Amino acid sequence: MPTLRPEVEALLGREFRCLDKGFVRLIDVMGDDRAIVQAARVSYGEGTRTPSDDRKLIRYLMRHRHTSPFEMVEFKFHIKLPIFVARQWIRHRTANVNEYSGRYSILREEFYEPAPEQIRPQSPLNKQGRASTPLPEAQAQAILERLRRTQQALYAEYQELLAQNVARELARINLPLSLYTEWYWKIDLHNLFHFLRLRLDEHAQYEIRVYARAIAGIVKVVVPLAWEAFEDYVLEGMSFSRQEQLVLRHLLRPEQLTEELLQQAGLSGREAQEFREKLARICSRGNALE
Amino acid sequence: MPTLRPEVEALLGREFRCLDKGFVRLIDVMGDDRAIVQAARVSYGEGTRTPSDDRKLIRYLMRHRHTSPFEMVEFKFHIKLPIFVARQWIRHRTANVNEYSGRYSILREEFYEPAPEQIRPQSPLNKQGRASTPLPEAQAQAILERLRRTQQALYAEYQELLAQNVARELARINLPLSLYTEWYWKIDLHNLFHFLRLRLDEHAQYEIRVYARAIAGIVKVVVPLAWEAFEDYVLEGMSFSRQEQLVLRHLLRPEQLTEELLQQAGLSGREAQEFREKLARICSRGNALE
Amino acid sequence: MPTLRPEVEALLGREFRCLDKGFVRLIDVMGDDRAIVQAARVSYGEGTRTPSDDRKLIRYLMRHRHTSPFEMVEFKFHIKLPIFVARQWIRHRTANVNEYSGRYSILREEFYEPAPEQIRPQSPLNKQGRASTPLPEAQAQAILERLRRTQQALYAEYQELLAQNVARELARINLPLSLYTEWYWKIDLHNLFHFLRLRLDEHAQYEIRVYARAIAGIVKVVVPLAWEAFEDYVLEGMSFSRQEQLVLRHLLRPEQLTEELLQQAGLSGREAQEFREKLARICSRGNALE
Amino acid sequence: MPTLRPEVEALLGREFRCLDKGFVRLIDVMGDDRAIVQAARVSYGEGTRTPSDDRKLIRYLMRHRHTSPFEMVEFKFHIKLPIFVARQWIRHRTANVNEYSGRYSILREEFYEPAPEQIRPQSPLNKQGRASTPLPEAQAQAILERLRRTQQALYAEYQELLAQNVARELARINLPLSLYTEWYWKIDLHNLFHFLRLRLDEHAQYEIRVYARAIAGIVKVVVPLAWEAFEDYVLEGMSFSRQEQLVLRHLLRPEQLTEELLQQAGLSGREAQEFREKLARICSRGNALE
Repeated sequence: MPTLRPEVEALLGREFRCLDKGFVRLIDVMGDDRAIVQAARVSYGEGTRTPSDDRKLIRYLMRHRHTSPFEMVEFKFHIKLPIFVARQWIRHRTANVNEYSGRYSILREEFYEPAPEQIRPQSPLNKQGRASTPLPEAQAQAILERLRRTQQALYAEYQELLAQNVARELARINLPLSLYTEWYWKIDLHNLFHFLRLRLDEHAQYEIRVYARAIAGIVKVVVPLAWEAFEDYVLEGMSFSRQEQLVLRHLLRPEQLTEELLQQAGLSGREAQEFREKLARICSRGNALE
Repeated sequence: MPTLRPEVEALLGREFRCLDKGFVRLIDVMGDDRAIVQAARVSYGEGTRTPSDDRKLIRYLMRHRHTSPFEMVEFKFHIKLPIFVARQWIRHRTANVNEYSGRYSILREEFYEPAPEQIRPQSPLNKQGRASTPLPEAQAQAILERLRRTQQALYAEYQELLAQNVARELARINLPLSLYTEWYWKIDLHNLFHFLRLRLDEHAQYEIRVYARAIAGIVKVVVPLAWEAFEDYVLEGMSFSRQEQLVLRHLLRPEQLTEELLQQAGLSGREAQEFREKLARICSRGNALE
Repeated sequence: MPTLRPEVEALLGREFRCLDKGFVRLIDVMGDDRAIVQAARVSYGEGTRTPSDDRKLIRYLMRHRHTSPFEMVEFKFHIKLPIFVARQWIRHRTANVNEYSGRYSILREEFYEPAPEQIRPQSPLNKQGRASTPLPEAQAQAILERLRRTQQALYAEYQELLAQNVARELARINLPLSLYTEWYWKIDLHNLFHFLRLRLDEHAQYEIRVYARAIAGIVKVVVPLAWEAFEDYVLEGMSFSRQEQLVLRHLLRPEQLTEELLQQAGLSGREAQEFREKLARICSRGNALE
Repeated sequence: MPTLRPEVEALLGREFRCLDKGFVRLIDVMGDDRAIVQAARVSYGEGTRTPSDDRKLIRYLMRHRHTSPFEMVEFKFHIKLPIFVARQWIRHRTANVNEYSGRYSILREEFYEPAPEQIRPQSPLNKQGRASTPLPEAQAQAILERLRRTQQALYAEYQELLAQNVARELARINLPLSLYTEWYWKIDLHNLFHFLRLRLDEHAQYEIRVYARAIAGIVKVVVPLAWEAFEDYVLEGMSFSRQEQLVLRHLLRPEQLTEELLQQAGLSGREAQEFREKLARICSRGNALE
């Protein structure tokens, strides 16, 4: 087992605050970029092993969706999050979870109170999201005040039911989705990237994005090469449909492609070759539009 | 594709009420006992094919944990359930889910109101459950009244936030865990049995047990032979640890075993033989206790 | 449960031949395009329900990777395939399998004999594949003859070991990877699309591609709208990395985009809008290359 | 991250030989008994934390099938194994795998040669297995010699096809199931226990049992408390069906149960109580047999 690099060691156990009372903590990690390379070399053979080869290999794996070597790295987090965030999170099934149980234990008085600037109107464009501008500050403050009072009242009622010895599993049913819960969450890097792709996306709800960003910050330190490839090909990648390619063909001047442009963009060797092939494929699409 | 038997046809779409406002509806089903047998015969070879052979084969598979043929049957349900039940349910990961979204749609004013006799004290024995006897009726009624008023107030607040055009995804955060949600849930029979084993258990929370029982009633009709085997070997099965077997040895009089007892219990052929072997194994355990 | 459309009914049980002795047969299917729409509407709300709405909704789901509604359709196949193909196939884990067992049953004398034109040299370009041109015909025929003789000899040896009463599980160990096996394979549409994406790809080994194409032919009939979306966005989709977009920016003349081009390509409404946004995003990328 | 205990450290990378040329090597491990306890305490609350509490908690979790805390421990192995063993192994789907690829690389000349005493007749009792006594030694030696010669001939043919520049992915198709392959295999402890339960069983093929035993030896060192509980409740546990309990009732003298017997067997506190309840449940089963 390779020892942890010091910058990873320094992350372990550290609380990265999320929202007003939540956090993400890296509890344990198995493997790093070297583990990806090691697993890939079992499958795809040896090759020389300079650090630059490692980077190239990892980029190749990411680009061509050879996902299994990324499954060889495993993360374990301790996370504190509001229940409505937990409900979105848990939809990612390929992970291991142990959550604080309101049947066994008394739930703590900790509720999510949005920052006033996050109290926003329904998005006019996006059926599922909120607008990019907040409500007027006074209105937001009033709403926030109201959410807070309700949360306090609900917790007082919960305590009173417990005081009457109502079973914990029942006393909690009127507690709100804004209540904080906690869990241990363990997931491999391939599935974590999938989580991040969906939850860093601007269509994800703001609150879960905050957690995704905190986790991304950790992943970046643990597997810097895999992260870079993930960013270049997936997070910042852009996909065009068959129809869009038909249009692109009419907007592209492939003859303007120069070695220099490729170099400046950091495309060389195999990646440059693959780019040329993609352009050629677009330009050879039937004359459907003419 | 074998056509559905009429009794299964009759189940499709029917609402089986659960709790005060919930339900389970069988939406679609792929396969039945014959599909289990068909898949098993691919693996374990042909054999004659009388109905009694089918029963024997299915019992053999269940008894010896040959689980993959049970995965060849698939159920799809439409379920309406309180969020705190949904949170327990979703922990079963090997299933497909589409849930009503409070980001896209306005949540309906439907809350779980426990029956008064279900408002019970914390169990004195079971750290996670409620006692077997209810609270005094007047107290239960008062609590119920209170839960109801709180639910109404929370929904009124939700509506008011929506009226102020607060984004749906935010307006909902103080809605309680007693709110009803809905989903489509698709799962194979092997994993469904696993769900039922855990959720029919008396340690499961009463509310999810109600759903498990409704689903069990449906499964029983769709795959009667598999259900019978599941009941005999799993639901009603009893397991003894190594230590318990050491004690059992001293309590058993294996010499009292007669053909007649076996027959009366319905144990014959291979099952009877396996039972004798188990007894012999217990009785040959070292003299640790002597 | 919606009844099967006649064209799907006509597929059930039909043997689609693959390679020299293999096949794919659709045994059962749960759901079709309507099941995808039905599940999506639980999550994303109602909307009007014309056939054109269904198509739009399914395309939207595919485009934005809302994958869970596609999991609501389930396929069950009976497949006969060489073991080396089975070994690639089984890497797709989210599926249910029952395979013919060489421990229980005597394996049949059926081996994969490649067509002569498939006996090809190692690809000069692709580390893992074969070249696009076959070996000289006489050489290919000689190799084929040799493969065949070896297969016969191996099966004769297997039979002889069985005749000596060597246990089946042992007698088979020198049988080759070209031996045919059979299995039942059940998988949901989302995971089937993932399988098809990887196994229709030109980098997949020819022999598994033959099966992927047979399955694609079936899927196309069962879920024509989902298939069309899969083809447009995934199979024929093209993805550009961050670096490639930096170059694209210099090759694009977005000012040449016209309503007419969009229309001719079949891009309207929301899809046209999303395309414009992608172009704008590329063109606003920093001047990194200047 | 807790540091590894020295006895675990000593295991890392060590080759545990299996069969004639195979091995199991522990490459990395995340967590140990403490990680199980830590995760369980998130769910089930705090409690005091003496080592004896840890043991009790782990036994409680195992006994009551609270499986998720066991998922918090992760193992990564490097394994070399014959292909026919790999084909059984890969059926355990909840694991991560990277296998040596015969498309990318030249397969090595390493074949499984059974020990002569493992060359056995078909079991007269067990449809899937081999008998408990070997074939006569001379016969076994002759068979072994034959297997060996065939393996050599097949490898020579493979080399010749490669020499003719036949594509690797094709040249290999007549290589036998006895060929060794290698992979990295990563799995959590809960799923590893499931693997071990099935593959340590006497019905599993001898060759995979050898690997299961090697892995069991490693697991025992890494998580001694969890292993002990797994052995007591699962590996050595014995389950009785509903029908068998009806018979047991007539064979049991529960009145002979003494405190002393319980103590000698190591049953105290909660476990003793649960045992008494099980006996009572059996004895209260209806008089079906009378």
